[in-house]
Amino acid sequence: MACLFCEIIAGEKPATVVSSEPAGMAFLDIRPVFKGHTLIVPPVHIETLADLPAADLAGYFEFVQRVAVAVQEGLGAQGTFVANNNVVSQSVPHLHFHVVPRTKGDGLRGFFWPRTKYASSEEAESYASEIRAKM
Amino acid sequence: MACLFCEIIAGEKPATVVSSEPAGMAFLDIRPVFKGHTLIVPPVHIETLADLPAADLAGYFEFVQRVAVAVQEGLGAQGTFVANNNVVSQSVPHLHFHVVPRTKGDGLRGFFWPRTKYASSEEAESYASEIRAKM
Repeated sequence: MACLFCEIIAGEKPATVVSSEPAGMAFLDIRPVFKGHTLIVPPVHIETLADLPAADLAGYFEFVQRVAVAVQEGLGAQGTFVANNNVVSQSVPHLHFHVVPRTKGDGLRGFFWPRTKYASSEEAESYASEIRAKM
Repeated sequence: MACLFCEIIAGEKPATVVSSEPAGMAFLDIRPVFKGHTLIVPPVHIETLADLPAADLAGYFEFVQRVAVAVQEGLGAQGTFVANNNVVSQSVPHLHFHVVPRTKGDGLRGFFWPRTKYASSEEAESYASEIRAKM
């Protein structure tokens, strides 16, 4: 198998497993943003969020939601950051959501910065219409 | 109403709307990381991911998934960043997922850095067991 996460699911590569369930597997990221940073992967090789079948949405995201609650409560965190990279910055081509425990003042405030702005409402509308055309 | 996103949903505050559906509303973030950065909110006031009812998971995440595909395809992006802040760094206390269009070399590579590491497999296991205890 060429996919690291498929190998972890198959037990062929080690991981610190949080939970293994029909909806997938949750295990610790070996290079955490903060300790307890957990990845949630579907049980079969699905590359990106776009590829997740409709029938699997509820099960997979119930799992992500439950991990997010457990990371926060289990580690005494104040919140969580839940995120997924598709294609760009996606180091392993097997769908994974990150759950990172957050605490006020932990230094990740800069995550969503810098930001830009639209020159006009017309410019914003032109972006929205390009997106809308594909929905 | 005190919640900005509830006011946008009610049409009491302006927004550049991408789509308004039974599962919620998608509209442009007014301070985008990159232009086309879209927020997806459930139609009723739900504060965090933990609060989203099980019955709404499939509908809400099908919407998020569809917006992610449309942002990428509509804007000719190479990928997407899909993310959600719960409590910490959550500027509006109404559940919202961000979908940010990504292009290789766009400068967001630093999003998930710096990273740390576990001193030992025992330390990693101690974190996993704290999380597991809440699942």
